Amino acid sequence: MKKANAAIGFIGIGVMGKSMAEHILDAGYSLLVYNRTKSRADELAERGAVWKDTVAEVAKEADMIITMVGYPNDVEEVYFGNNGILSNAKPGTYVIDMTTSEPSLAKKIYVEAKNKGICSLDAPVSGGDVGAKNAELTIMVGGDKEDFENVLPIFEIMGKNIVLQGTAGAGQHTKMCNQIVIASNMIGVSEAMLYAKRAGLDPETVLKSISAGAAGSWSLSNLAPRMIKGDFEPGFFVKHFVKDMSIALAEAEAMGLRTPGLQLSKYLYDEIMEEHKGDKGTQILYELLDK
Amino acid sequence: MKKANAAIGFIGIGVMGKSMAEHILDAGYSLLVYNRTKSRADELAERGAVWKDTVAEVAKEADMIITMVGYPNDVEEVYFGNNGILSNAKPGTYVIDMTTSEPSLAKKIYVEAKNKGICSLDAPVSGGDVGAKNAELTIMVGGDKEDFENVLPIFEIMGKNIVLQGTAGAGQHTKMCNQIVIASNMIGVSEAMLYAKRAGLDPETVLKSISAGAAGSWSLSNLAPRMIKGDFEPGFFVKHFVKDMSIALAEAEAMGLRTPGLQLSKYLYDEIMEEHKGDKGTQILYELLDK
Repeated sequence: MKKANAAIGFIGIGVMGKSMAEHILDAGYSLLVYNRTKSRADELAERGAVWKDTVAEVAKEADMIITMVGYPNDVEEVYFGNNGILSNAKPGTYVIDMTTSEPSLAKKIYVEAKNKGICSLDAPVSGGDVGAKNAELTIMVGGDKEDFENVLPIFEIMGKNIVLQGTAGAGQHTKMCNQIVIASNMIGVSEAMLYAKRAGLDPETVLKSISAGAAGSWSLSNLAPRMIKGDFEPGFFVKHFVKDMSIALAEAEAMGLRTPGLQLSKYLYDEIMEEHKGDKGTQILYELLDK
Repeated sequence: MKKANAAIGFIGIGVMGKSMAEHILDAGYSLLVYNRTKSRADELAERGAVWKDTVAEVAKEADMIITMVGYPNDVEEVYFGNNGILSNAKPGTYVIDMTTSEPSLAKKIYVEAKNKGICSLDAPVSGGDVGAKNAELTIMVGGDKEDFENVLPIFEIMGKNIVLQGTAGAGQHTKMCNQIVIASNMIGVSEAMLYAKRAGLDPETVLKSISAGAAGSWSLSNLAPRMIKGDFEPGFFVKHFVKDMSIALAEAEAMGLRTPGLQLSKYLYDEIMEEHKGDKGTQILYELLDK
């Protein structure tokens, strides 16, 4: 794809999607954008992105379409709906779902796309709001090697650690591995920070000791400081994390895999959802356990 | 303490203790060693350490005594037994318990030591066998600031991240925070690696994607590769981890703190203990869940 005449469509301008789309725009590509709530695309439009009123319009005009929507249902609708991508994209178009979604759905998109001469990759990301802002996302990709190589320059605009994990669905499966690790780790990080507080320690000084050692993790370094400050604003939404864990649990169950940590985490975050705090950041688990 | 005439006693020559004692010897200090199983001190003796037949002999002759034993009961005996440290050490001696042990016991040692003019610090470590070998341990210290500053040069021989966390017991409490984080994270890491295998992914390629992102942790980088290879040899013993978690659970309960992740982890590692695998490394949780 040459920049001069390549148009990239971006569907889904959320916390992450907006930063990602900005980087593509900054790299000099024509950007066509669609979002369910139009106002969220205003800033991008001011910076030169072209607003499209429907997914179909984006699909018809773009040479590559990136989707970054909320839930598997949204992915399903955007790809398979009457005015969706697969009914409207030209043969030869690249479609890349960067939403964290179901591995089985990624495979379904791939097969249907292939039938129409469309190249499909599943490419969910990790790294949260900060990673998206700094173009340092981890991108986990499933699909054909040739397609991956052709799209790599675009991935490199948004991320740093970009790995082809296997055939269609492998990107989503890898993202599930990522979320499974985080699910249990969030519990440990929350419990430890509460323990520190109740033991009369200074939690920030505790972090100086434990962040660099065997307990060290991204969550401990990045989310524990927010917990301590009582900052529960979303880097990563509780409601999205619950969605991811639901997918992972269903997949694990289908594999006959024992995942007590994932189950416990899902149970705790469901409690947070019941408190209507799905729009908070995942670090709010700290607050739930502080009771 | 001047090297020329300072004798350091080291009690407890286990996986960690041996490396730590070696570094002190290499730094040029006189080293007096005692261990329940004498043969474990043979190599140190060949390198110039002086074997002592009892804790009391070490205590009488050393200017500073480091203890790195197994369980709180061992700590209790080594410090408070008839032939223990506190009955035999000279006033002005520094006693430093680097065993992971009970915060309340650390306070008890401190008070009793203070009564006898002995300076006590609790200074448990993190970083495992590799950290001990490379003199890169994290050392979490509780006690008086002046004592901490006097002992710091010795800590710096064994570790890199050395922080005074507060008064007596604060080192142990900080170590509990460390273990609480690890307890849940080990579950997530194990589940994710098993998920990767069952989903038909290449677990090592998955690690390339997820180790650097929001799921990244010391355990994921250092223990997941051992899980994948089926290497369950101890860096950190299951039996010691179970001991640590028991202490943390008791403390958390006393604080009225909800620790479902810690409870779950303790439950799972108890299953491993029932399989008589307490001498394996903590990464063996992977094997338990692979059923």
